[in-house]
Amino acid sequence: MSRFWSPIVHALTPYVPGEQPKLTQLIKLNTNENPYGPSPKVLAAMQAELADTLRLYPDPNADKLKAAIAAYHDVSPAQVFVGNGSDEVLAHAFQALLKHNAPLLFPDITYSFYPVYCGLYGIDYRTVPLSDTLEIRGEDYRQDCGAIIFPNPNAPTGRLLPLAVIEALLDEHPDQVVVVDEAYIDFGGESAIPLVQRYPNLLVVQTLSKSRSLAGLRVGFAIGHPALIEALDRVKNSFNSYPLDRLAITGAVVSFEDEAYFQQTCQAVIASRETLSAALTELGFEVLPSAANFVFARHPKHDAATLAAALRERAIIVRHFRQTRIEQYLRISIGTDAECGALVSALKELVTG
Amino acid sequence: MSRFWSPIVHALTPYVPGEQPKLTQLIKLNTNENPYGPSPKVLAAMQAELADTLRLYPDPNADKLKAAIAAYHDVSPAQVFVGNGSDEVLAHAFQALLKHNAPLLFPDITYSFYPVYCGLYGIDYRTVPLSDTLEIRGEDYRQDCGAIIFPNPNAPTGRLLPLAVIEALLDEHPDQVVVVDEAYIDFGGESAIPLVQRYPNLLVVQTLSKSRSLAGLRVGFAIGHPALIEALDRVKNSFNSYPLDRLAITGAVVSFEDEAYFQQTCQAVIASRETLSAALTELGFEVLPSAANFVFARHPKHDAATLAAALRERAIIVRHFRQTRIEQYLRISIGTDAECGALVSALKELVTG
Repeated sequence: MSRFWSPIVHALTPYVPGEQPKLTQLIKLNTNENPYGPSPKVLAAMQAELADTLRLYPDPNADKLKAAIAAYHDVSPAQVFVGNGSDEVLAHAFQALLKHNAPLLFPDITYSFYPVYCGLYGIDYRTVPLSDTLEIRGEDYRQDCGAIIFPNPNAPTGRLLPLAVIEALLDEHPDQVVVVDEAYIDFGGESAIPLVQRYPNLLVVQTLSKSRSLAGLRVGFAIGHPALIEALDRVKNSFNSYPLDRLAITGAVVSFEDEAYFQQTCQAVIASRETLSAALTELGFEVLPSAANFVFARHPKHDAATLAAALRERAIIVRHFRQTRIEQYLRISIGTDAECGALVSALKELVTG
Repeated sequence: MSRFWSPIVHALTPYVPGEQPKLTQLIKLNTNENPYGPSPKVLAAMQAELADTLRLYPDPNADKLKAAIAAYHDVSPAQVFVGNGSDEVLAHAFQALLKHNAPLLFPDITYSFYPVYCGLYGIDYRTVPLSDTLEIRGEDYRQDCGAIIFPNPNAPTGRLLPLAVIEALLDEHPDQVVVVDEAYIDFGGESAIPLVQRYPNLLVVQTLSKSRSLAGLRVGFAIGHPALIEALDRVKNSFNSYPLDRLAITGAVVSFEDEAYFQQTCQAVIASRETLSAALTELGFEVLPSAANFVFARHPKHDAATLAAALRERAIIVRHFRQTRIEQYLRISIGTDAECGALVSALKELVTG
């Protein structure tokens, strides 16, 4: 507390990201990073950019990246917004598109940054409970609201909503923006991006941090009607002209050009997820069906916080949320098969020992 | 305009940065970039970071960078905030520290992003005219206000305010935050950073874009009392957990370790500035005394917009602001001696031809 703070600062409850430990010996299954590195072509292209030209500002509009994303997703560059990770893209979306006279709706169990953005921008919100099986139900959103946002697949559950349900939601809310946060869509879901051509109220947000193995580079993007993109651009250009550095723009562009590597690593993660889910089920865990690069699981006889602490003693970190309804779940990122194997061995000791 | 926009978006007038031309043949003296590349040690360190580890998130707190800046400037890490360029640092400062019940004060001629931030965050402001010689006068700020911000040296004039005047301002406003934006301080000014130990109301903002030749990497920072830094951290952690990517953190850290290169390039820019100022004066220009990596100059017999357009036809770009009181000035970034020489030759033709 300080008399120098703007009044809003006193009430902020900032987001707390998963731990980024400084030790490198840990098996790190807590922040949904990709176990495989970025495409070698991405690294090679960035290499070429690592030069005296770093003295020059980047393109403030990142036109090359917008063009690459537009070509990849079959939309026009005017339908693309890019930012410093999807967290920044989401922040701008909250400020530019989600503050209205009626409350914003999002699930009670979801990405925990959403209420934080609401605090930062003074946005009124109402949470909509997931079903008993921790699923989003489209019909629960049939209520007065200013806008809607949810991740698909949802986090931290990993559960996927079919595109038909999203389309119904869009039809039912023609005057409200619906943001679909697709951070994990490439691990088995169907993207809502094609729907932007028919729904001027749809904004789809994606990231290069997960499926494109570039969490360390900070690139996210949004796709929607040019009017929605213009709102994001106005806010971005009133905040920071150059959010993406030269290396990030270059690396991100090339990431969309190496489709073979992208498909191969996504398929490897999906295969490991299915193997891990089966092994956890074998150990007595209840594992939610996941379309993401993590699983969400609980054991009927073992306390989740205790398990997480015991795993940590064995140098394995997973994520545990102290939140009503999910406090008995662990969220486990998909690692390499060796990492998943080490996790299963440790859990076997803990739950059968 | 769109019914989907949050109401605030309609009224925004975004900042327009200097042109980043896609042509590489131009002599680019319009956005105050350093004519020399970053330290070779910076590039080498980033090289080592260009690896599979880009799949992992960066340290959200950039502790290594805070430690490097703290050590360099002889403060504690708790007195350091870092962000995605000083524009992002300034944006957070406006939201976290400059919104109060009384208006924010800044010069009428200054960094044109300031009123844009005010629009974004709904901050009431009042501009304080520069003197007839385009100088900030401390006594003009003796008025009721919520906070004060100005660049030192000021932009786009390049004029430096002595530290004694800043200290008097701090004494006169013990209950208001005073932000000193030192983007250009390393080109001959005296930083206010040592004053943060005595003034809990002082925040100093700097960037690695100019004197450290890293405009393409996007790193800025602020130094102040830990209570001011906490406000910035709260806002940052409610906006984006990871604003600095792994390469930016690494490059920035090493930039503070190569003092010899830093001093050498700053001195070269200062020497070129003095040579250029003399040559422009020789051509009849009135050149304001500059402590920055640019000069601000007008010719009593030649229209500035016409000169800028004529230079552009000769593949030289400088910055011209269509703003009352300064519409007859050109802001010219200091290039290499060859670039400055080409500029002087072109101007010689134009003003004596």
